[in-house]
Parts: sequence; structure tokens; C-alpha cells
Amino acid sequence: MRFAKGHGTGNDFVIIPDPDGLLDLPGELVARICDRHTGLGADGVLRVVRTAAAGESDVAGQRAEWFMDYRNADGSLAEMCGNGVRVFARYLLDEGLAAGPELRVATRAGERAVLAHPDGQFTVDMGAAVVIGPGAVDAGGQRLAGLAISVGNPHLACLVEQSVAGIDLAGPQVLAPAEFAGSAADSPGLVSANVEVIRLVGDHEAEMRVHERGSGLTLSCGTGAVAAAVAAAVAAGEWTDGTGSAWTVHVPGGRLAVTPSATASLLTGPAEIIATGELSASWIAGCVAPVGLNMR
Amino acid sequence: MRFAKGHGTGNDFVIIPDPDGLLDLPGELVARICDRHTGLGADGVLRVVRTAAAGESDVAGQRAEWFMDYRNADGSLAEMCGNGVRVFARYLLDEGLAAGPELRVATRAGERAVLAHPDGQFTVDMGAAVVIGPGAVDAGGQRLAGLAISVGNPHLACLVEQSVAGIDLAGPQVLAPAEFAGSAADSPGLVSANVEVIRLVGDHEAEMRVHERGSGLTLSCGTGAVAAAVAAAVAAGEWTDGTGSAWTVHVPGGRLAVTPSATASLLTGPAEIIATGELSASWIAGCVAPVGLNMR
Repeated sequence: MRFAKGHGTGNDFVIIPDPDGLLDLPGELVARICDRHTGLGADGVLRVVRTAAAGESDVAGQRAEWFMDYRNADGSLAEMCGNGVRVFARYLLDEGLAAGPELRVATRAGERAVLAHPDGQFTVDMGAAVVIGPGAVDAGGQRLAGLAISVGNPHLACLVEQSVAGIDLAGPQVLAPAEFAGSAADSPGLVSANVEVIRLVGDHEAEMRVHERGSGLTLSCGTGAVAAAVAAAVAAGEWTDGTGSAWTVHVPGGRLAVTPSATASLLTGPAEIIATGELSASWIAGCVAPVGLNMR
Repeated sequence: MRFAKGHGTGNDFVIIPDPDGLLDLPGELVARICDRHTGLGADGVLRVVRTAAAGESDVAGQRAEWFMDYRNADGSLAEMCGNGVRVFARYLLDEGLAAGPELRVATRAGERAVLAHPDGQFTVDMGAAVVIGPGAVDAGGQRLAGLAISVGNPHLACLVEQSVAGIDLAGPQVLAPAEFAGSAADSPGLVSANVEVIRLVGDHEAEMRVHERGSGLTLSCGTGAVAAAVAAAVAAGEWTDGTGSAWTVHVPGGRLAVTPSATASLLTGPAEIIATGELSASWIAGCVAPVGLNMR
């Protein structure tokens, strides 16, 4: 089984090429691959499969040639990932599987347009960002006011005055709105929305840290960066018509650029391929294989 | 630059073949490779180089063909690693670089004999284990009595009655002996010895967790398993002649077998190769390379 490993602002992926949809990639194998000590290690797996060969009803109507079959590190299916789709696009281009600089990628959240820039950056259309209303979070005993925002998934984006590094984001609790906090009782230990803390650090420039629902503190989150830019744009009085101008968002894993919009938010950032290779067949088989003794 | 990734009981390594010692592998590149989000991710790098081509005075007198040039994840040099040398041996055998089942590996701590078993297990001669005397540790406010043991590096091995999973090993403080605790003041936040907590769970069978000096909680530690077996052997009244019988040591990353000895302790455990491949040249160059646009 061939693979590549890549990352976008520290959000890392094992890419598995399977153009004709012939691979058996059960959740157990995805979880083994993503294990950071006994596997290759990654935040998720991106299977590269032709949309027509994917055999998934979710993408049956999409016309993009390639489908990003995104799996979480625990093996479960995921819809979209703003950092992952850049890495996916970079892989397609580097391998000659797609022509650039414009391409489209099928995902479980619908087709995404991607634009490759000559300097190695990629811009992704992240779709609509919608301001839901005011909200609040308890971050390590500190109450933070924020905005509830949907970028396909729920975010609670909190502008703060202090350095974001000093805020306890280990286990934030969403206090409001109720629909964001509602599921916390069902899932003890999990927050019910992605929580961002954002500080303005310059003209249209912000720093952000994020606690991702189900993943905890991460180095980067594409939809989180969009939510942060929306919150910053609202605070700057720019969101009156549902659009913002371009914002630079510094995340722990690097720098992203976001132009938020109620119809088509644009996320720009780097995507790197670290390595390519082949998984050991005996390791995939899950057994400690006999040692290849060479009696020379 | 070619690589393999392997692990032994969850202690994982990127293996870099460099038979003729031609590679430039500065500490910065090792650290980038070992980064678990923006690199391949590993506890360390094992460079595979012919002893004669290594150009290291530490190994100049050793007659083993292959030198395990072991680097910590931060890029610094390291002497030996009981889990690493098994993975190193497995790589040599799988690649046909050495004949088995017996082989020798040059390390900065001296030559190590390794025996490959047909079932994929490897036995390594870990050298002498020496009981220094009684000691004590503060583990999250709980005072634990233990034995100070040297396995080339310092260990404080504490037999406990409770499940080892429940003991706070996040930042143990060595209370005694003084020579093990001495450097703590110089290195705030670092413990001055490896600390093991060990519970007997059966006949010559123990479970162990370890806090490694400079690395924190890890899934496995080869010298720690030897120290654990010594402490268990002493408690069983077996150490009167400086040898113990065979002990099974369960670590979070798997199972090891140890026959401790004041002259030549034997450590047996698995070693797996997960994948082989090639690092991206543009990633090594450390820059975001231009995207390979394919105008088909």
C-alpha cells in the first residue's frame, strides 16, 4: 500500500492513493496508520479515489474527478477539512493526477474549488460562514464572551485582549448558546463546539488558538480560522453585508489568510508533502512477521 | 533521502540508511524529521552507517560492521536504546545488510550482541545492571520507596502495591539518593533519573510505567524494563549473586522479557518495520517548494 505524508500548518495527514477504489481501508487500519507511536502517525487519512469509483452516495452527483475520502484518526468518516483539502490538492498536482492551477475536489460536504499559487500556497473555497449570535465559554474558570458561528460545523469564536497563549483551552465548556452547549451532557469530556480564542495583533491580523471538538488542542483548524476571521470582521464593523476583507490568522502551526464571507469564504495557506513510500505488508497484516534472515 | 519507520513496543524511530557515511544529517534536520506534526514523527532517528565510515572516535575500535548512530528527537546524540537496537537489527536483516540470527551492533555505549528469533522477537545484551542502593521518589505528592539502579543510565525503580496506571508520574521528583536528585536544581522541570513504578502481577511478571529523564512519560523504555526486573528480582530474593531469572515486564506499549544480570542483562522484545520510503527533497530543503503544476 503506497502512501504520502503531508501537512498544512501542522495539521498532518497520511495520503493513500487508491485511484480505482480497490483498497480495503477499514477504520481499524486507519486508526493503526494514524497511531503516532506504532503507526505512521497523523491527524487523519486522505484516501485519493476517483469520484466515479468511490461508491459513496454522498458524492455520486459531484463532477470533480477526485474525491477526498477523509477519515479521522480514530477511523471514523469525516466531511471536510480546510487544511486537508490543500494537502490533497498538492498531492494531486505533484503526482500529475490533476492539472492546475484551478481544480475541484469532491468531498462529503460538497465540491470544493482549490487554486494553487506558484509560491506553494493554496486557496480553498470553504463555503458559507454564518453568524448565529452571541455565545459564551468557560475556559479554565474564565468566562469569555464570543460569537457562535457556523462554517458547516459549529464554532464559538471569542475575541480576547490578552495573549491567547495564556488561556486555558484544555477543556472549554460552552455556556451559550444552548444549541451549542446542548450535547455536552451527552458526551462528557467533549465540548460541543470548536472553541477559538482570538486576539487582534495588527491591522487585519489576529492570533488564534483552537480547541477542536473531539480532538482537543490542535496546531491549526481551517474552519476555525474562518470563524476567527468572521469574529474579527464583526468586531471591526466589516460584516454588515456578510463579507469581510482579507485577514491574516496566526495559528500555532503557521499562518493562514482568510477572506470570510456569508456565501464563499476563502482560506489560503501552505501545503507540504513530507515523504512518500510504501507501508510494510507484514505490518498491515497486523502480525509480527518472521524476520527476513539473510544467510549470506 | 531514503527512510524506514519502525517501532519496538511503541518506542518509534525513523531509520535513515547511510551505509557509506555520505549524508549530512544535522541536528536541525533530525528535529524536523522527528516532529510529529510537520515531519515524519518519531522518538528518535537511527542512522545506519558502516562503523568504518562513521568517522566517530567513540566507535573507532568496534568491530561490528554497522554503527547505530542514534539521535534523540531534539537532534542531540544519544548512546544506546534497548528498543532502538532491536529495530535497528530488524532493519539490517530485512534489508539484507546483515546475516542472522546473531549479529553485533556498534553503539556509542559499546558493541551490543543481538539475537533474532524466528517469531520476530529480538534479544539484546544490555550490559551490566548495578544496584546502587535505596532511594525514594515524590510522585504527585505520594512518597514511593525504591531502588537506585544503574543500567548505564540512572534509574529509580519503585515497587508498588497499587495499579501503576493510577500513579501520577507526570513529574516525579527524586528525593534520594542525593547523586540522583542532585541535578534537579540545575534542570528545573527535569527529573534527574528515569523513574519506574512496578507492580508484581504474577509469577515473575510485572507491570511498569516509566518517566524518562528528559522525555517524560513514554510507552516503553528498554533500560527501564531492565531496572524493573532488577528491582523485582531483589524483592524476590533472587539477586544475591547478581543475577535474576527471566521476568516478563508489561509496559504501556507492549511486553518485554528481561533476564537481569550484574554482568550481561538480556532484553527480549518485538521490533516492527512500519513503512519505507523517501523524504521529499523540497521538504528537506526546508522551503515551501513551487507547486508541480502539470498542464496536461
